[in-house]
Amino acid sequence: MRVEIINTGTELLLGRVTNTHLAFLAQSLLGIGLRVERQVTVPDGVAIAEAIETAMARAEIILITGGLGPTTDDITREAVAETFGRKLEFHQDILEDIAGKFAQRKLAVTDMQRQQAMVPEGGTVLPNPNGTAPGFIVENDKNVAIVLPGPPRELRPMWTDTAVPWLRQRFAGRLPPVHEMTLRLIGTGESKVQPLIEPGVHAFDPIEVGYCARPGEVDLRLIAPDEARLAKAVALARERLAAHIYAEGTETMEQAVVRLARAAKKMIATAESCTGGEVASRITDVPHSSEIFNYGWVTYANLSKMSELGVPANLLETHGAVSAEVAAAMAEGALQRSGADVAVSVTGIAGPTGGTPEKPVGLVCFGLAVKGGKTATHQRNLSAERTTFKAMAAQLALDLVRRALIA
Amino acid sequence: MRVEIINTGTELLLGRVTNTHLAFLAQSLLGIGLRVERQVTVPDGVAIAEAIETAMARAEIILITGGLGPTTDDITREAVAETFGRKLEFHQDILEDIAGKFAQRKLAVTDMQRQQAMVPEGGTVLPNPNGTAPGFIVENDKNVAIVLPGPPRELRPMWTDTAVPWLRQRFAGRLPPVHEMTLRLIGTGESKVQPLIEPGVHAFDPIEVGYCARPGEVDLRLIAPDEARLAKAVALARERLAAHIYAEGTETMEQAVVRLARAAKKMIATAESCTGGEVASRITDVPHSSEIFNYGWVTYANLSKMSELGVPANLLETHGAVSAEVAAAMAEGALQRSGADVAVSVTGIAGPTGGTPEKPVGLVCFGLAVKGGKTATHQRNLSAERTTFKAMAAQLALDLVRRALIA
Repeated sequence: MRVEIINTGTELLLGRVTNTHLAFLAQSLLGIGLRVERQVTVPDGVAIAEAIETAMARAEIILITGGLGPTTDDITREAVAETFGRKLEFHQDILEDIAGKFAQRKLAVTDMQRQQAMVPEGGTVLPNPNGTAPGFIVENDKNVAIVLPGPPRELRPMWTDTAVPWLRQRFAGRLPPVHEMTLRLIGTGESKVQPLIEPGVHAFDPIEVGYCARPGEVDLRLIAPDEARLAKAVALARERLAAHIYAEGTETMEQAVVRLARAAKKMIATAESCTGGEVASRITDVPHSSEIFNYGWVTYANLSKMSELGVPANLLETHGAVSAEVAAAMAEGALQRSGADVAVSVTGIAGPTGGTPEKPVGLVCFGLAVKGGKTATHQRNLSAERTTFKAMAAQLALDLVRRALIA
Repeated sequence: MRVEIINTGTELLLGRVTNTHLAFLAQSLLGIGLRVERQVTVPDGVAIAEAIETAMARAEIILITGGLGPTTDDITREAVAETFGRKLEFHQDILEDIAGKFAQRKLAVTDMQRQQAMVPEGGTVLPNPNGTAPGFIVENDKNVAIVLPGPPRELRPMWTDTAVPWLRQRFAGRLPPVHEMTLRLIGTGESKVQPLIEPGVHAFDPIEVGYCARPGEVDLRLIAPDEARLAKAVALARERLAAHIYAEGTETMEQAVVRLARAAKKMIATAESCTGGEVASRITDVPHSSEIFNYGWVTYANLSKMSELGVPANLLETHGAVSAEVAAAMAEGALQRSGADVAVSVTGIAGPTGGTPEKPVGLVCFGLAVKGGKTATHQRNLSAERTTFKAMAAQLALDLVRRALIA
C-alpha cells in the first residue's frame, strides 16, 4: 500500500515555519506498517488539486495537511471535493460545535465558520477537539484521502486518536506486521557500525537495517516482520555494539541518565565550563529530574572555578583551565559541595577563538567524581562549530554519568 | 524565476529526521528575491531522477539536497548527470582535499571517497569545508540545478558562502530588488500585532507583511521593493511595537544580550531553578560570552538555593521556592557572590507534577538584581509542556537582562 503526503501552506514555502508533519506522520505510519513514498509541499491555491490528482495516480493513501481554515486561501476542502468528484455538504452539527467553541471565547460565528462546516459528500468527519475545523476522510474504489488541519496541536491528536484507528480498521489484515527496535549509539559512526552488524543480522532476513547519524552518534534501527527475527537481530547487535549503546527506542541520553539515577537512588551534580549549563539543562528537561539533581555550577572563569568549586589556583596556573587536573578538581569540588553521589565536569575550548597550538579549539576535558571512588578524567578533541561542540561535549558528559550509574 | 526544492533521503520519509532545509533555504531565497514554488521529498533511488525531470519542466532553478554520501544509495550525482545528459568527471583536487581531511582523522581513502570526487561535466564545484563531499551546480539553457549535501552543518555554510553569491552573480539584474527587515517581538502575538500595524504600513504599499509565530513570540517581517518604502514601514512598526522588539534581523535574544553586555562592559550572572541551566547555556552559545558571563548556578532544591545563593530558610518556608521573595533572594545572592552587574533568577513549576491550586504548573517567578539598584520581580503563568515552558521562561529571563542593559 503506497502512501503520499501533501502539505499545503504558503508559510511552509516561505520558510516561516518548519514542516514537522512529515516526520510525525511518517514515524506513526511506520508503526502500523505503512511507509511514506513521497511528500510534497504546495502553496495555497490551485496547486493543491493538481498535487492531489498526481498523488492519486501513484498512491492508495493520501494524507493532506492544512488549508482548512476560514480564510479565502483555505481551499483544501474544495480541492479534495473536486478531485474526488463530490459536492461539499453542509453539516449542521459541525457548525453547532464551532459555535459552542466560539461562544466560550465570546466570538460570533460568521459565514467564514459556515464554510468550515462543509465536508465532501460521503466523507467521514474527524472531530477536532483542539481547534475549529474538523478533518475528514474521503474514499473511492482506488484512493483514500485523509485531510488534517495544519496546526500541529490540532493535527497530532486528531491523527493519533481518530485517523490511525480508522486506518487500522479499514485495512485490517492488509497492514504488514512491523516489529522494530532502535539502538542509540555513541562513540561510533555509521561506517564503523555497518560492517560490524550488516552481514550478521542478514542471517535472519528479511531484516531491514537503517542508520540515522548525528555528530558523534548514530541510531541503528532494525525492522523485521516478526518478533522472533527481530529478537535475534537485536541480540546480535547488542552483543557486537554493547559498549556504544546508550539508549533504546526513543529514549534520549538525559532520559536514560535520569531513569538510571532514579532507579539507583543516586544524586547527580554538574560542574560546567565550556558547556555553559547545557548538561544541567538537559538533565532538567526530563520530568522528575528534581529527584536526582539539585546542584549545578556554571564556572565560566578561573575565579568562579576557584570560589565555587574550590579548584586550587596553582592547578589553574600550572595546567590551565582546560586540563585533566582542573576537570578532576571541578568534579571533586562539585561532589563535595553538593553531597551528590556522582559529579561530572566539563572544561574545554568552544571557540571560535581561544585556541593555542597545544590546546586547539575543540579540546575538551571531562572529570567524573564518584562518592567513595577514584576520580577519572577523559579528554577529547571535537572539531565542530560552537553550538555543535557544546551539544557533543554535553552528550559525552552525560554518557560518563550514565556509565558510572551502570558500573 | 521559479524555484523548486527536491529533498532526497529515505530517512526523511521514515520520519527519522525533520526536514529543516526547506525553511532555511526558503528564507534565504526570499532575501534575494526568489520564492520556492514547490518542494518534494523523494527516497534515495530512482525517484530522484524522475523528480528532477518533473521539476525541470516547471522551474528554472532546482535545489537538490542529500545523496552525496559515499554509500551505494547515494545517487544524486548520477541522477543529476543523467537528467542533464552529462558524464561524471573525476576531480583529482577534490579527492586530494578529501584525503587531507581523512588523514587528519587517521582514516584511509577508499573507492567510496573516489566516488565523492565525481562531478557532472561542466559543473561548478561548491567546496565543503565542513564535510567530505562538495556540492555542485549544473546548468543548461533552461535550468540550473544546485546540488547540496544533506547534513545541515555542511549545507548551510555552503549555501550561504558559495551558492547564494553564485546565484546573485548569475542572475544579476534579473532578481527583483528585495529590501526586508524582521522585527523580533516578545510578549505579544500575531493577532495583536496585525491590527496595530497592518492598515498603517500599507500606506507605503507595495509592502509585504509576514508573521512567524512561536510560543510567546512573533517575528514580524516587512518586505519592500525599495529602501525608502521599507524604512517608512519599519519606522511605523518600531514606533507602534517598541516595547516588544527584542532584536532585529536574525539576531537571537541571547545574541542581543551578549552584544549589549559587551558594549556596556557589564557582567551577567544567572541563578536558575526551573530553567535548569538553559539561561546560562543560551548565553554561552554566543561567541565571546566569556567576556560578560562568569558565574551561573543551577539550584534545583531548597538546600542548594540556601547554600549556594544564600536564600534564607525562612523565606523558603514562608513563601515557598516559587515566589517573588525567593526569586529576589536568588538574584541578589547571585549578584553578590559573582560580583556581576546584573543577575537574573528563575524559579517555577515546570511540571508535569508539582503544581497546587494556588501555585499551578506553569507558574514562574523572575528576579532581577542590578548593582546599586533595587531588585525587581516578575511573575508569569506559562501553560506549555515542560521543555517549551523551560524555553519560554529562559527567553523571558534573558529579556529581563536585555531590558536592564538598555535601561
